[in-house]
Amino acid sequence: MKVVVFVGGVGGARFLLGLKAALGLSPVGVADGESPHEVVAVVNTGDDVWMHGLRITPDLDTCMYTLGGGIDSERGWGRAGESWTVKEELAKYGADPTWFGLGDRDIATHLVRSRMLRAGYPLSAVVEALCDRWRPGVALLPMTDDRVETHVVIDEPESGERKAVHFQEWWVRHRAELPAHAIVPVGAEEAKPGPGVLEAIASADAVLLAPSNPVVSVGTILSVPGVRAALRETAAGVVGLSPIVGGKPVRGFADACLTAIGVDSTAEAVGRHYGARKSSQDGILDGWLVHEGDAADVPGVTVRSVPLLMSDVDATAAMARAALELAGVTVG
Amino acid sequence: MKVVVFVGGVGGARFLLGLKAALGLSPVGVADGESPHEVVAVVNTGDDVWMHGLRITPDLDTCMYTLGGGIDSERGWGRAGESWTVKEELAKYGADPTWFGLGDRDIATHLVRSRMLRAGYPLSAVVEALCDRWRPGVALLPMTDDRVETHVVIDEPESGERKAVHFQEWWVRHRAELPAHAIVPVGAEEAKPGPGVLEAIASADAVLLAPSNPVVSVGTILSVPGVRAALRETAAGVVGLSPIVGGKPVRGFADACLTAIGVDSTAEAVGRHYGARKSSQDGILDGWLVHEGDAADVPGVTVRSVPLLMSDVDATAAMARAALELAGVTVG
Repeated sequence: MKVVVFVGGVGGARFLLGLKAALGLSPVGVADGESPHEVVAVVNTGDDVWMHGLRITPDLDTCMYTLGGGIDSERGWGRAGESWTVKEELAKYGADPTWFGLGDRDIATHLVRSRMLRAGYPLSAVVEALCDRWRPGVALLPMTDDRVETHVVIDEPESGERKAVHFQEWWVRHRAELPAHAIVPVGAEEAKPGPGVLEAIASADAVLLAPSNPVVSVGTILSVPGVRAALRETAAGVVGLSPIVGGKPVRGFADACLTAIGVDSTAEAVGRHYGARKSSQDGILDGWLVHEGDAADVPGVTVRSVPLLMSDVDATAAMARAALELAGVTVG
Repeated sequence: MKVVVFVGGVGGARFLLGLKAALGLSPVGVADGESPHEVVAVVNTGDDVWMHGLRITPDLDTCMYTLGGGIDSERGWGRAGESWTVKEELAKYGADPTWFGLGDRDIATHLVRSRMLRAGYPLSAVVEALCDRWRPGVALLPMTDDRVETHVVIDEPESGERKAVHFQEWWVRHRAELPAHAIVPVGAEEAKPGPGVLEAIASADAVLLAPSNPVVSVGTILSVPGVRAALRETAAGVVGLSPIVGGKPVRGFADACLTAIGVDSTAEAVGRHYGARKSSQDGILDGWLVHEGDAADVPGVTVRSVPLLMSDVDATAAMARAALELAGVTVG
């Protein structure tokens, strides 16, 4: 069975752990001889950024470290046992930015990646090389090898000047507290889907949208030309999992992102925002999974409710099983 | 008084500490209000190298850290209190090379430098920016802003194939144990002296050659077109200090380098290699300082012998005073 999942960072990575478990695979890494099912994660790269001359790919790394057993699972991102020597020294040089969490172990990953990118390798080849070490047991496909960076239009707090800043500046530095007038995946219009992305969607048995941020994670993947059409055309069922539970995002600042695009922070509004494959012009969903107790009426889409809190791998595996079932496939 | 000194790494940096002391300056850093004398160090950049996508400038860093109080003084290079997390992680990715000492604190310096170089700043401007933090109390001028890299022609130990490797590979990886058939400062022919280098030499009251490696440190600086002529034309006295004491280099593998260019490892042979300003066609010395007990007959050059072991700052200051005196200037 081939399952394709659209993912962002922390939430997407955790969902993949559960999905692997649901498919009978080891959540972390690859056990000897196991390969009955194929999981392909299409990963958001709109959060990627050059900092201190290093190319940083937060969502890809979070997935790679989480599935490869290297993640700091309390923080949810970055390496376990991390130290911060380089960051402290950069601050002593007054090197901007100082607000981004650049750990020493993490920096080695960024150095390998940046060197390969500068040598001309596409991002997808870099991810493959890094995964030689981490063995996530899942194909991690960048949504695109082209440079797409999400920017957010804000009013500069001191000057009041309206300007666009990189997503990371809004998200990490300002903790998404400055109202976003617009969220734009810069470069998306000219981007091509990463190698294997369209093929994976076309040949999938099920396509799932992880309960990741519907604007800056899943939404950014959908902004790459050709991806939405591939979702609408695949023979597989397409099912999304709501990241909104009880009117609030489970993690991150998804509500601030939804506000920016004029969508309410409810499971129903997000489901309607994705829309139905059958009955709308550019919708992508066959099924929409919401949290127990949340109601959602999404015309043309089968809505089901199950517990949607990824409290541990077992709970997440149950969510994944429900999503696969809603997509029309049954596991084991 | 303006003193110009040609330096390499460890030995050159230690000599600068003593020279500052001899001039009544704080050896490390800058004391409040002090600036009676001007020291300009012209620093070898032939050891510089790109590694892991970082531009590494060993001699400039050794001088900057030593004079700025950040050096690991036991090792002689790199930062005090260094850790090696990034290096260990790079090795886990199998990223080459693994034999170069890339410390975490050091990496912050390399990141700032590499980013500025890629943004188009010349190396001399980068050094100035880094020295804002370190305040070495000495102008550190790269010998050139152009890319010059010393390469060494060796026979590959396994295959026997003759090939040129970067100086660092020969020096650090092979500890200069493979016989060098030639030592070539690649790029020197097209290089221009760094900003201020020729002007400093022309306006100096004394020019000293530190007891650095005469081939791969001082020799590389001399390979930059215009530098040798500036030394021959300056009104200042030019005095060298022998790095060979009792027929052996005080540190490093200078003998292996001298062998490669057909010069004996004696104070006399090195003095003759530099040659006399007055009586030879391309010589650069007026005076040559050798170690107590070493004899040297260098035609056209005034030779004097004093203790030349840089055992501490006082001993080094005494060497510097003797060199300045031989160059015809007196301090305080």
